[in-house]
Amino acid sequence: MVEDTRPTAHELLSLPRLAPLVPMLYVAWTDGELTHEELRALGEAARQQPWLDLRSNIVLARWLDPILPPSASELVVVREHIRHTAEKLFHSGQQSLAELGAHLAEVAAGRDGLPAPMPELSQALKQLEDSLGISGREAVRALVPAAAPAPKRVAPSEPTSFDPEALRAVLDRKYPEAREQVRAWLDAPAFRYTDAHDTDAYRDRVFAWLKSLADQGLGRIAYPEGNETRADLGAFIAAFETLAFFDLSLVVKAGVHFGLFGASILFLGTERHHREYLPKVASLELPGCFAMSELRHGSNVRDVETVARYDKETGEFVVHTPDDGARKEWIGNAARHGRIATVFAQLEVGGKALGVHALLVPLRDVHGKVLPGVRIEDCGEKMGLNGVDNGRIWFDHVRVPRENLLDRFGQVDAKGEYQSSIPGDSKRFFTMLGTLVAGRVSVACAALSAAKSGLTIAVRYGDMRRQFGPVGAQEVRLLDHQTHQLRLLKPLAKTYALDFALEYLVERYVKRTEEDAREVEALAAGLKAYASWHTTAVLQEAREACGGQGYLTANRLPALKADTDVFTTFEGDNTVLMQLVAKGLLTGYRQRFEDDRVHAVLKLLADRAAGVVERNPFTTRRTDVEHLRDGDFQLRVLRYREEDLMASVSRRLRKRLGAGVEAFEAFNQCQEHLLALAHAHVERLVLEQFLKGVEAVREPGLKTVLGRLCDLYGLSCLESASGWFLEHGLLEGSKARAIRKEVERLCAEVRPDAVALVDAFGIPDTCLAAPIGLGRLAP
Amino acid sequence: MVEDTRPTAHELLSLPRLAPLVPMLYVAWTDGELTHEELRALGEAARQQPWLDLRSNIVLARWLDPILPPSASELVVVREHIRHTAEKLFHSGQQSLAELGAHLAEVAAGRDGLPAPMPELSQALKQLEDSLGISGREAVRALVPAAAPAPKRVAPSEPTSFDPEALRAVLDRKYPEAREQVRAWLDAPAFRYTDAHDTDAYRDRVFAWLKSLADQGLGRIAYPEGNETRADLGAFIAAFETLAFFDLSLVVKAGVHFGLFGASILFLGTERHHREYLPKVASLELPGCFAMSELRHGSNVRDVETVARYDKETGEFVVHTPDDGARKEWIGNAARHGRIATVFAQLEVGGKALGVHALLVPLRDVHGKVLPGVRIEDCGEKMGLNGVDNGRIWFDHVRVPRENLLDRFGQVDAKGEYQSSIPGDSKRFFTMLGTLVAGRVSVACAALSAAKSGLTIAVRYGDMRRQFGPVGAQEVRLLDHQTHQLRLLKPLAKTYALDFALEYLVERYVKRTEEDAREVEALAAGLKAYASWHTTAVLQEAREACGGQGYLTANRLPALKADTDVFTTFEGDNTVLMQLVAKGLLTGYRQRFEDDRVHAVLKLLADRAAGVVERNPFTTRRTDVEHLRDGDFQLRVLRYREEDLMASVSRRLRKRLGAGVEAFEAFNQCQEHLLALAHAHVERLVLEQFLKGVEAVREPGLKTVLGRLCDLYGLSCLESASGWFLEHGLLEGSKARAIRKEVERLCAEVRPDAVALVDAFGIPDTCLAAPIGLGRLAP
Repeated sequence: MVEDTRPTAHELLSLPRLAPLVPMLYVAWTDGELTHEELRALGEAARQQPWLDLRSNIVLARWLDPILPPSASELVVVREHIRHTAEKLFHSGQQSLAELGAHLAEVAAGRDGLPAPMPELSQALKQLEDSLGISGREAVRALVPAAAPAPKRVAPSEPTSFDPEALRAVLDRKYPEAREQVRAWLDAPAFRYTDAHDTDAYRDRVFAWLKSLADQGLGRIAYPEGNETRADLGAFIAAFETLAFFDLSLVVKAGVHFGLFGASILFLGTERHHREYLPKVASLELPGCFAMSELRHGSNVRDVETVARYDKETGEFVVHTPDDGARKEWIGNAARHGRIATVFAQLEVGGKALGVHALLVPLRDVHGKVLPGVRIEDCGEKMGLNGVDNGRIWFDHVRVPRENLLDRFGQVDAKGEYQSSIPGDSKRFFTMLGTLVAGRVSVACAALSAAKSGLTIAVRYGDMRRQFGPVGAQEVRLLDHQTHQLRLLKPLAKTYALDFALEYLVERYVKRTEEDAREVEALAAGLKAYASWHTTAVLQEAREACGGQGYLTANRLPALKADTDVFTTFEGDNTVLMQLVAKGLLTGYRQRFEDDRVHAVLKLLADRAAGVVERNPFTTRRTDVEHLRDGDFQLRVLRYREEDLMASVSRRLRKRLGAGVEAFEAFNQCQEHLLALAHAHVERLVLEQFLKGVEAVREPGLKTVLGRLCDLYGLSCLESASGWFLEHGLLEGSKARAIRKEVERLCAEVRPDAVALVDAFGIPDTCLAAPIGLGRLAP
Repeated sequence: MVEDTRPTAHELLSLPRLAPLVPMLYVAWTDGELTHEELRALGEAARQQPWLDLRSNIVLARWLDPILPPSASELVVVREHIRHTAEKLFHSGQQSLAELGAHLAEVAAGRDGLPAPMPELSQALKQLEDSLGISGREAVRALVPAAAPAPKRVAPSEPTSFDPEALRAVLDRKYPEAREQVRAWLDAPAFRYTDAHDTDAYRDRVFAWLKSLADQGLGRIAYPEGNETRADLGAFIAAFETLAFFDLSLVVKAGVHFGLFGASILFLGTERHHREYLPKVASLELPGCFAMSELRHGSNVRDVETVARYDKETGEFVVHTPDDGARKEWIGNAARHGRIATVFAQLEVGGKALGVHALLVPLRDVHGKVLPGVRIEDCGEKMGLNGVDNGRIWFDHVRVPRENLLDRFGQVDAKGEYQSSIPGDSKRFFTMLGTLVAGRVSVACAALSAAKSGLTIAVRYGDMRRQFGPVGAQEVRLLDHQTHQLRLLKPLAKTYALDFALEYLVERYVKRTEEDAREVEALAAGLKAYASWHTTAVLQEAREACGGQGYLTANRLPALKADTDVFTTFEGDNTVLMQLVAKGLLTGYRQRFEDDRVHAVLKLLADRAAGVVERNPFTTRRTDVEHLRDGDFQLRVLRYREEDLMASVSRRLRKRLGAGVEAFEAFNQCQEHLLALAHAHVERLVLEQFLKGVEAVREPGLKTVLGRLCDLYGLSCLESASGWFLEHGLLEGSKARAIRKEVERLCAEVRPDAVALVDAFGIPDTCLAAPIGLGRLAP
């Protein structure tokens, strides 16, 4: 009854078996060169394909009937369907209609399976295309336009004092190959930002990106042969840091799988786990999760409530979620792609509670179906990082074999005897927590990369955009406004400082031993907090510095802000991490003076203080440039603050503990003081590393500009805490004023090099992808 | 040939004429009670409707054929279509299938027009529904579930020292009716947050919300009878502030239309413009834009380049965009709904350039079609506020009648003679810029409302969530951690301070005269900047204080952050506004001492300083509670800083100007200094108003708690700038330390009242809509 009407896009697109032919049918009707006869011939040839069923054949006949051609509006629907699907697959480089058809078939196959094996299908499509007698390539180009070429950057407005490429080589450091490799990978057309609105499509694209990187060898950098001793974590972190110039969902997903999940097997498992799992981790054959946090215990993970009870009868662990507050929460890779998880649970063997341990628990079968006893829920939409499939997991008495315990630090034998080389649940727990260090190092590096992206955009825009100026003359560039210099160039200096500090962290991490493991952990905790807070602040400043343009999605700052906002609270809440740093410092401090308590401490402090900064009127008042721009002076002041805060908070704590105040309460009363100590410690350390880094640079031009940035960072630290330094008599008012002036002067000196300094970060233009960051006023 | 298969959802939903019948068809197949005979009877009755064409009838027959019923999966598609459409229309309260069908028809009508006039259609549907013989209401309830009821709040964890309702009455102040009215409007089911991903649907929903508010009288508060003298802007701003507890796109759209567009007619137009336009503004019959910013001139609007040239021959103005940099940029309401715009352009009459003036220029006809000569482009996706349709506008020699000039401050007569009561282009321009003041007052108020929402969520979560604690005991609530108190309660105190300061601003604004207009403008500029920066900082703190939960869209903080982020740069970039404040202060300062230059200034300064703060060791060292918690002491210190900065920057400027430095350059060299002055001024003013506000409160319980907040704000100001005060000898180290301690102590005192203090903001639960802000641990 409806066969008297024209063919519709609906009927064509609703039949998956016709999917491979859709591009050809579209081109056949829009090419304008095909005769009716040719159309009929195409139909005949197509109809002989064995995969077409009766209904498909009927619709195909209607779609090739020259008497009742499809209407233009139906053809538009078909074209948009093709474009949309091709865009989803990001195969803008298709060479032929056949190839495009095969991809459409793949997409449609998600519903009903491919109509024929792919090789056969491709072969048949190729023949059909040839029979069509039109140029497939041109037709495809018209149908699926390639992405627009990246715009050219404009040159900086002022001559630069150094070669940005030479500086980039300094920043690329020990792992230039890993970084260049990632830059090359990211240069492929597939790596273009995607619409983040369609969450499912975005997640699948992120997974496809990750798979593509795994295929090309990203995972093998970290896990070369499933072998711990061969792992090159330094190179992997360098690769990861470079990857963070691009989409941050990809970075976090890579971090969850390769970083947290892979590292848990590497560090908590033993040789048989390495052999069995690491190659599949490297290839992404086995996408994994790191299931530590629970709803009720996010920061305080020592008290997680998931239980793993050993069943001697069957030689299995029974993993169980006792109530809803104990569900695993925020687990990356869980909602969609993860097939297995490292689950942290309270181990119980023979009725004995043995504290938190990690086990491998399968989540999904090879087809992606969730396994019995496991329940997974999507965490839902987030501020950013929506390409990462965070989920919640419940376990209902899930059984896993005894071998699934990651048993480097604690073993259970078949009889149910527990053994551990580390006595004490608490110490064992903190040893296991060491797995988080890799994650924190990586987050710090990724955060800094995002800060670099934001600064690059804002500095280039500030160098180009003019607003206000002298009456009757041309308006002035934003970066020539004093306020604009201060708001962007102080953070630029801090970004460089952190770059050197993170190099030091990675080196310490890669070379860590059992002896300095705790120290490296504290270092990672402190720098993760300091770097991620910096990133949040920088991106806010960058957004405001770009005004309305910074608010446009096209200019990338919105995604940078939204994606990194959680960096300050995930992988350890910054406030909690900083307390950890402070407690670590106090432990070291106490150990140094264990024998000779309070008096010795105070005496040593007094000695140190005297040696560190001569607190005499001459120094506290000296305001000459040579003195202010002396890194040793800046460092001595920061070191004095750290020592002083350590002594004073230690005194306060002893006093309270001595008076019988409960330990938690005593620490709580000094919490701000502890945070101030941690901050002072990290800041001193960052300046120290920046100074060493500048010291090591040989080329005079680079040394000069980096020296300026280092002074700018050091003096900014003194300026921002001038209250404390004045309060403690380390500065006098005149000196505080002189420091403020010097900071302004340094900004003005750095200004001409500003664009070259962000160019030296080496962020590929395609990653930046912000019109205002590439020299255009607006999208 | 295809009639042997079952009916599909595609064919049903692609025919707009069947749209009204879709709900009935769905219910007919899923109700399970209908016999084949009844189905046939329904078909017969439906088929007699005159609006069904042949194709619709054919498909309808297939959809009612009892032999080949639709498959379950096709019915699911139909159900989801109905739900989606109903959700878009937010008519969850439909009473019948007929009503629901009519709504679907309306939506489909967007494409092809209604198949019949609505009354006829409704009548016919009603009859069909009756003939169906099933309960339409129940069927609708099952089909379109109503929104879940809002969860109950949990009670605060500690007893409260005062009645939050009494405090709310204090905050509601002069306009409780306007505020309660808006709270009642927002309580309707239509006002629920919507998915912001589908930009078109979101914008249309925002427009529908706005229309609903206009119908209920929101616009009439500001423009009661198209009459300036009757306008109650204070009540309107109070309504606007309350509206800002809900979706901020709606607030900004309301601000653009009622605030900027309406106010431009009110303040720049004359009586005939008021009569003709204001009633249509109030009713939203004529949605309008405020077209000031251009791509090349965002902040520096005095240099906009759009031209309005008077053509004496025709008595028209010719409005023209000379090049792409002069396109109107970021114009709210332009991309989709605006029908007319107040356009700021350089006026040229008889070859003479007369500076910036405003004209009314129609953009779209009644059908929404863009008029000839006008080109409009969408600004594209933004970080937030995607419910506002920002656009770019180009004018190609668009002609408007002479009467369209908003001619209060400058008139052109038919012969082309220009007249103005204000001599000088520049002065005239700044007078016209006064229209922006309403916008800035409103943005400051809306920003503060958003800060209140964020604080409410974070404080309630912090009062409920436990993490860490003494060994072996229950974990401690977040708000009982010292750091958590400081990070949330200091901003809470500042929020209260701003609430009182903004009350003062609104009062000054409402009562402004020609004499104090410039002063009120500066006040609005300074408080807009101070409040919006505060909001950005508070929401960041709130997000981090809620950890991962704060990162979930469901908990509202992501939208609050994204939507308000632009507040710091729109309606005047904050940095630019603060310079305006400083320049205003300097003008006043210069005027005060015009006759007796430098010496008098210095002498007066010395006198003042001595009177203001006794800078003797006793005061600078006094650290007792009574002294620290003395608002007069805090205020004297802040006032001293303001005066000192005014004198010092004035000196620096004179020195430079005296040495022949060009004015722009001289100001640029002192830019940071000017910003510091503006900041000091605003902060002093805010504390002053808070003190006055507390003074006026009678109820002792409220007075005590507000007094604590006021001390907390005042001392926080001293603490955060302790460097400056120490540098200038106003504090000694011991006193700075004592202030820090006192701030910690005040936070601990405020802590038990924290929840009650956010409850007193009176934010409707439905507006908050964040599970963690309503006493639930997680969504």
